[in-house]
Parts: sequence; C-alpha cells; structure tokens
Amino acid sequence: MKIQVGYELIYYFPQKTPMILMVNVHPERLSDIVTASFLTTDPELPITGYQDSFGNWCSRITAPPGTLRLTGNSVLRDSGEPDPVAESAGQHPVEELPSETLVFLLASRYCETDLLSQTAWNLFGHVTPGWTRVQAICDWVNNHITFNYGTARPTRTAWDAYNEQAGVCRDFAHLAITFCRCMNIPARYCTGFLGDIGMPPPYPPGDFAAWFEVYLGGRWHTFDPRNNQRRIGRVLMARGRDAADVAIATTFGPNSLESFKVWSDEVIEGVATSPHSF
Amino acid sequence: MKIQVGYELIYYFPQKTPMILMVNVHPERLSDIVTASFLTTDPELPITGYQDSFGNWCSRITAPPGTLRLTGNSVLRDSGEPDPVAESAGQHPVEELPSETLVFLLASRYCETDLLSQTAWNLFGHVTPGWTRVQAICDWVNNHITFNYGTARPTRTAWDAYNEQAGVCRDFAHLAITFCRCMNIPARYCTGFLGDIGMPPPYPPGDFAAWFEVYLGGRWHTFDPRNNQRRIGRVLMARGRDAADVAIATTFGPNSLESFKVWSDEVIEGVATSPHSF
Amino acid sequence: MKIQVGYELIYYFPQKTPMILMVNVHPERLSDIVTASFLTTDPELPITGYQDSFGNWCSRITAPPGTLRLTGNSVLRDSGEPDPVAESAGQHPVEELPSETLVFLLASRYCETDLLSQTAWNLFGHVTPGWTRVQAICDWVNNHITFNYGTARPTRTAWDAYNEQAGVCRDFAHLAITFCRCMNIPARYCTGFLGDIGMPPPYPPGDFAAWFEVYLGGRWHTFDPRNNQRRIGRVLMARGRDAADVAIATTFGPNSLESFKVWSDEVIEGVATSPHSF
Amino acid sequence: MKIQVGYELIYYFPQKTPMILMVNVHPERLSDIVTASFLTTDPELPITGYQDSFGNWCSRITAPPGTLRLTGNSVLRDSGEPDPVAESAGQHPVEELPSETLVFLLASRYCETDLLSQTAWNLFGHVTPGWTRVQAICDWVNNHITFNYGTARPTRTAWDAYNEQAGVCRDFAHLAITFCRCMNIPARYCTGFLGDIGMPPPYPPGDFAAWFEVYLGGRWHTFDPRNNQRRIGRVLMARGRDAADVAIATTFGPNSLESFKVWSDEVIEGVATSPHSF
Repeated sequence: MKIQVGYELIYYFPQKTPMILMVNVHPERLSDIVTASFLTTDPELPITGYQDSFGNWCSRITAPPGTLRLTGNSVLRDSGEPDPVAESAGQHPVEELPSETLVFLLASRYCETDLLSQTAWNLFGHVTPGWTRVQAICDWVNNHITFNYGTARPTRTAWDAYNEQAGVCRDFAHLAITFCRCMNIPARYCTGFLGDIGMPPPYPPGDFAAWFEVYLGGRWHTFDPRNNQRRIGRVLMARGRDAADVAIATTFGPNSLESFKVWSDEVIEGVATSPHSF
Repeated sequence: MKIQVGYELIYYFPQKTPMILMVNVHPERLSDIVTASFLTTDPELPITGYQDSFGNWCSRITAPPGTLRLTGNSVLRDSGEPDPVAESAGQHPVEELPSETLVFLLASRYCETDLLSQTAWNLFGHVTPGWTRVQAICDWVNNHITFNYGTARPTRTAWDAYNEQAGVCRDFAHLAITFCRCMNIPARYCTGFLGDIGMPPPYPPGDFAAWFEVYLGGRWHTFDPRNNQRRIGRVLMARGRDAADVAIATTFGPNSLESFKVWSDEVIEGVATSPHSF
Repeated sequence: MKIQVGYELIYYFPQKTPMILMVNVHPERLSDIVTASFLTTDPELPITGYQDSFGNWCSRITAPPGTLRLTGNSVLRDSGEPDPVAESAGQHPVEELPSETLVFLLASRYCETDLLSQTAWNLFGHVTPGWTRVQAICDWVNNHITFNYGTARPTRTAWDAYNEQAGVCRDFAHLAITFCRCMNIPARYCTGFLGDIGMPPPYPPGDFAAWFEVYLGGRWHTFDPRNNQRRIGRVLMARGRDAADVAIATTFGPNSLESFKVWSDEVIEGVATSPHSF
Repeated sequence: MKIQVGYELIYYFPQKTPMILMVNVHPERLSDIVTASFLTTDPELPITGYQDSFGNWCSRITAPPGTLRLTGNSVLRDSGEPDPVAESAGQHPVEELPSETLVFLLASRYCETDLLSQTAWNLFGHVTPGWTRVQAICDWVNNHITFNYGTARPTRTAWDAYNEQAGVCRDFAHLAITFCRCMNIPARYCTGFLGDIGMPPPYPPGDFAAWFEVYLGGRWHTFDPRNNQRRIGRVLMARGRDAADVAIATTFGPNSLESFKVWSDEVIEGVATSPHSF
C-alpha cells in the first residue's frame, strides 16, 4: 500500500519570529519514502535542519512579518497492516529493562508520575502485567476521558486530564503514558499522521494524531487510547517523553494560525484518494 | 587544589528492589580524578553502569531485602577558582542558538514554562538581555523564595515554588531555570557536591547541592540562585532538564533512607580536612 | 538555484545477495530538499534504513536473483555559489582541535599516514600552515597524479597512488587527505553528486564524485584535488574516514553492474536541463 | 575476585608535544571499579578527557620539554571466570545483522579485507559457520604466525603479517579480524590489561595485550588468537576497528619512550600479588 501524507499551515506573524518545526516524516520511515517534499515555505525562506536527541528531524526557520504558508507532502510505502498485536509480550522487571528505555519511566512535563502513582497501582496493580495491563490502561483512559476539542488547552497535564475527565488525543496519550510509567512500563509519546483507512473518520479533519508506545517483551509496541483500536497507516513524525518534546511548531513570538490542514490517504493507482496533492 | 567528595547512604528495603543511582562524579571531571571510588555496596552487589542521553554516568543495582549501605569517595584536582564570571556574555537570538541547546528551552516536569511565561516577561522583559538578565532572575528568585527544608517535597514544581514562596536548593534552581527558558535562554539543571571552601557552611550538613547553567555568549555558565554567590569547588554529578532527570537515587519499591551523609572538602597536604576518608 | 540529482544502477545477481547502499542525499541537506525520491527498487523490495556512526543515511536491501534496478532522483535548493574560500582560515595546534575532529587525524584503510608522514613533512613542512598548506597539498596532488580510469582499482591506497602516480577522483582525495593528516590537519572523505554547472564537464558522464574536507579556523572547508577548483553545486551523499566507509554499494556476494548512470543538473524554471527526470 | 591493573610510562620530549592517551579502563568497567587512579602525570599537567565515537575514554595532555612520567593504577571487581564459551552462537546472515555491527565488517587501516577475501574463503569457506569458524580462524592464525617481538613494527598490517608469518599480539588480532570480516562476521579490535592469573606468564612483562571480539548469536564474544585460550582477568581499555583507533599513546612530535611498565594482578586480601601498588 502507498499512503500520501501532508499538511498546510498558514500563519500570520506581526514581527520577525524564529520557529522550530517537527513536521518531517520520522527518519525511521525514510526507507519507505517513494517521494517526499518535507517542508516548503511561501515566501521561500532558508531552512536549517537538525536531529534532536530523540532522533527526530527538526527544521528551523525565521518567519518574516506577514503571512507564512508551510506545506509538505510525501508518499510512503506502508505494510497496509493494522498496528501489530502481541498479546504475549511480557512486562520486563525493572532490573532487566535496557538502559535506553529507563528515561521513559521518568516523570515529564505532562506526565506527573509522582502525582498519579498511587492511583495507577490502585487501578492496575491487580491486572496481569504486560500487554493485558497496557490494554487495561488504554480501556480505562478511553472510558474515563471524554473527547472534547472545545476545552483543549496546551497546559493540560495527565493529572489535569484525570481530574477534568476531558481531553483531546494528546491528553488520552499523556494519561495512559503516565499510568504505564507508574507501573514500571517504559512509555513514549508519538505524534504523526493517521488517516481513516479502513474506517469512518476518527479525527476532526485537519489535525495531527497522538498515540504512544510501550516497551514490552523486548520491543516497542503501539497503543492508541484515543481510538483504542489497532489502526492502519500511522506515519510517525516525532517521538519524545511527552508533547513538550514534539510540538509541531514552536514559535518564539506572537502569531496567529490562520489555517491548518492535514491529510493522510491511501494512494490508489498512483492517485491519492483525496484532493490534497499539490 | 584537591577536593575530596563522597557520600554514605544507608537504606532499608523490605523486599528486593531495583535502583538507579546517579552518584558518580560526572564524566566531564574524569580527567580531574586523582583517585576515585565511585560506588561500593555493603552487602556487595553486582553493579551495572550506563550513560544516559545527557551523558551522565548512572549505576543500576538490585537491593536485597534488608539494610544496604552505599558509599563513594573521590579526590579530584580543581582550579580552586570561584565560578567564572562573564558579564559581557550576551544572549543569543533564538535563531542563532546551537541546535543542541534548544531542548533546554522546552518545558519539563518541574519547569512549567507555559504557566510562567507571562510572569517572566513582566518581571524581566525590561532587563538588559544576557548575563545581567540571568543575574536579575537569580536575585529575584533568591529574594522571593524562603529556604525551608521543613516543607520540602519531591512534587514541588517551579510554579508551586513561585506561589508558595518557599523551597530548597532544587526549587530555587527550578524557578530560575523556568524564568530563563521563558526569556529564551537555554537553562539546564545540575546536581553535585558543593562544600563550604572559603565560606561559612551554606548547606545543612549532609546534602547534595543543586544549581543550574545557562547558555550565553557561546558557552554554558554556572549560576546558583540558592546561594547567589560565585563559589569554589563545585563537583558536578549529573545534568538534565530538571530534577526528574537526575535523581540521586530512583527506587522501584518501598524503602526507608536511614542515614545520609555527603561531604566535600579541600584536601590539605594529602589529608582531607574532614574525618570522612574511608 | 535548484539542482536535480539522481542515479540509476542496474545489477545482475546470480543469487540472493544482501546489500548496503549509501545513495541518499546526506541528512545535512534534508532541509534543502524540494522533493526527493531517495531509493526505488525494481522489482520492489523491502528497504531498511539506518544512520551510521558518521551520520550518513544508509539503506539495506536483499537483492533477489536476477536483474535489479535502483533509482533515486531529488531536487534541492542550493546557494548557487562556488565552494567558499577562506584563505585566512588558520591551522589549529593539535592541542586546540575539538575532540570530535581527532579521529580524522588517524590512519585509515586507504590513508596510510604512517607510511607517508616523512614525505608529507618534506614536501609541505616549509609551507605556511592553514589554508595555504592545504591548497599546496591539493596543487601537488593534482600535479603528481595523472587521472586514469583505465587503471582504477578498489584496493588502491594513498601510498599506492603516490607511487603509481595515477588515479581517479577517490585516489586524489585519499592522497591529499593523507598528507593533510600527516601535517596534523583533520581531513575527511566526501562522496556525492557534482555536475558541471558553470563549466565544461569534468567527469566522465555517469559517475559520483569524491572530494574532501579539512578542519581549519574552527570549521570544515571543502577541497577537491581532482578538479582543484572551487565548484558550484556539490550535493553530499556521505562522509567518512575514507572510501572504505562510504562505498555507494557494498554487496555481499557475486554480482555484475550492468549499467550505471548519475546526473546532477541545474533545474531551470521547474525543468531539469538534462533528460534525466523520471 | 579483585584485580589490580596499572601502568607506568616514562617519556622524554625534546619540545612541547601534544598527546592523546587511551590508558583509562573502559567505561563499560566503570561499575566494577573499587578504586581508580586513571592518569597521573609528573610533572603535574592539565588533563582533558573526552569520549571518542567508539565510547572509549581518551585523555589529552601537552607534554612540556623534558621527562614525563605517566601512571595509573586501579582495582576492579572481576567475575574470576575465564572468557565465556558459547559454542552454539550462530553466525547471522548479513541481512539480519544489527546496523551498528556493520562498520565492523568494513576494511580498516590494518585489516585489508579486500586483499584477503579470496584467501579467507579458500581457508574457511568449508568450515561450519559461527563459533566453530571463528575458532578455526584463531587456530589457523595462532599456527601460521610466529610470535616475534624483534620484528614488530607499527605499520604491519594483516596482509603483511599473513605474508611475513610473524607478528606480535596485535598482528595476530588484525589477521584474525580480517578473516572474520571477510567471512561476514563483524569483528572489532580490543586493547587492555591481561595478566597471567591461573597460568604461566604469556606476555613479556610490561606490555598491554590485544585481542578481539566477534558478533555471533546476538552478542559480542571474546577471542584471543595470540594465546588461543579462554583467559581470566581481561580488563578492557579501548575498542575500535583496529589498532589505528586505539593507540595507547598518540604523540604529535618526536619523543623517546624511556621506560614502560604494565601490570595486572589478582588482589589477595586487599594486597596485590605484585609489587606494583603505588
């Protein structure tokens, strides 16, 4: 299967403003690229790329005053299979976890493991460790949080989402990540493209998706507490400890986002099924 | 000058408990080591070492049930000079910051830049950028926060410290780091040994110290809002985004810390000035 | 300016054969990409990507028995300026070189600094250190080596090229790199696309180019002893200690290369000036 | 078991000379250190430490004119077990090798895989792949090369050693590494301390040892074609592609090595069995 993913962001800046963007397809998908246009700016600006400590490809630009249009559009090969299931993937005792997974047990900006540890053990301490426990966490989060774009705010943490019982996909992910870490399961935040291949549209049109990965049975596995389904066609953009590490756009100055489009569609016989091809 | 640094931690564990320790002298001081005993356990346990993504040397052990004594003691060469001052160190525009510094502008567990941004700009927006601004932040924090061991708690964030006006050295550091990041100055958290060489004892005996570093004028500079003085003889153990990344000991299970001693003393003619040598 | 670069390689394999390919545009140019198709295989094969210790993007495939066609084609933004000149870039004393440059002073497979050290000092010991010395090395190599595709062989080292006085672009680069390292100037090998923008074709049609970089005056500078000219439009693919690290294709089994095309052309008004667009 | 390892090097320098030293115990043994004195200089000099791309801890100093004494002495915990044997460790097909092992299949300064490939396949192509094949390579090398300190020279490569049938421990290692790489088995060069615990002294007193590691069955295994025995008490200092990467001392200027002592002994009841303790 081939998938076309892309975005168009239009900003207005009252003054010259530096930006960091994480809109590139993740390097781990580089070998799947059929053709890629990662980032084009209008007006045309110098773009500097760098790889952060998580391995994400980031771009830096300095927006001039006025309107700025950012676009990207790529076609990738994809297995066409749903997120793999590995119900037998066991939970590692902490002392057997690979060292590089340990940072994903720690607290982070939006995942206050120190505040939710007792809750996590009360809720999930009796559940079979491993895959079953992670699925129980996702079920609980999916049930407990009501999806609500209207009350979304960038400062909401897992603790806030737990108490307010409301959130968007990133809040679902933060709460599930926090519970997993409390239960000593390494968990990391993912952001990327997720279309509706094989199902009715799950996201309001025009948004990126957030999900997470856990380390069980010797490798990382995808979970998505917002949709709580194995899905086809995720295209990762960036990974981190939580949303603080992988903001799509970090702007260092006032701005308004005038327009925001995101797409992710199967390409049928060389033609994307949506009208988004540039 | 030569400095002897060390610690003795005595824990009681009711059951087998994995631990991560960050008690080694930081690798950047490895070339200053005259002689080092990084970590000895009693009873003797297998120790596994690894380097985290910040370059800190971490140790992993699994504590058996019962009492565990952890000790280390090292002698290092030191310049004997106070923390360098560089009043002309200028603030980089964001677009000119090296990429590897950018992560230290982001929010982290105990540094909610998103909540304190407006406060920071109100307080420090009018202050000359660069060294003067960082010093103004340290002065303000040193003034605003009352040192109080009694109310210390591990979940206190910069936002909490700001509102409660109380804290210990780590809270001073978190609040100053948060303000610096809000003002677009990369800031990172440091933990290590800091004795009282050349001054009356600043810390309650038996604790590690926290300070921070900012990136100005092309390099990192030390600031210490708790003491708010240039000091002699800091010995770094670990650096990170905040205290969540560099806990001295992370224990995965219940435990009690029965005894806790830390020392950092000048070595005069081969003999440490304190009775701590093993 | 925009540049289109690409390649078509056609192999025949008698049996299933694993391959490593270094045909991607180097990550440091990722932010210059207008549109990229890094690697397409015919027949279509699974491709695995990884980044080696030098930061190059590598691809792994397993070729099935039979004919395999590999193609890539990308369009990049480019300054349109010749390789920068910095005649005042000074030579660092060894003790002041950044640590990460030191590996590029060491001997490597095709750069026997231990065999050519005395020769280097005899030839260039009296030349002004820094840029002038590197240019003198390139002049000498360009003069001493006769370009000859006919006698090219993959095992030829700098020492061989020095003695045989013959070589192709990689041999010119190896000998100049070796002399630079002998004179304590860090030097690293580069491979990539180099067209004939602004000049008569320098390369036999259909080959990649090799050049090198030296560390002077606090940064890396491009030199090209084969052409011995500042050129427009180099597009880096990979860097390493020498050609052993950056082979375009490493095949683990017998094979024949049936056809080999490489292009690198300015794109005028959206249309490449060559007939290579796919 | 506890092992004491150390060295004393005495140099004479006619002029100020920068040096790079790889005399520290390897970071992977840091958690085994009971007490360490990595590097002391007489006269006392500033020492700068850095970690190279292989993870080795290197030290940089600038020797003043005159005599320089370098010493180190450390005590480490050790399993006391001989090098592990894993006869069932299988050879990975190239396409299944982890990416980070691939660099150890490539040619390097002293390991000309391109020159010895046909020889390797002739000699070992018929031998069972995996552990048996590596042991066969070590047996062959141990048999073919005559140990001879008298003819040792720093420019001798695997190809030279193969033809001259003579060498010291590094030549044995280079030739075995080269054959392994030719047979598609990742192999890396090791240097460190190796005493005579449990056997008659194998090395002329006062030298470091060289051995190598191969990647089989999902992990790295130690082989030592010079001694061709499983040995107790190896203490690694540095790893690389070959000896070019891990020279004990790289000096950038003329010098004479006036004295050279190395020791590696079991510590019995707190006292080393040799007279080397400082």
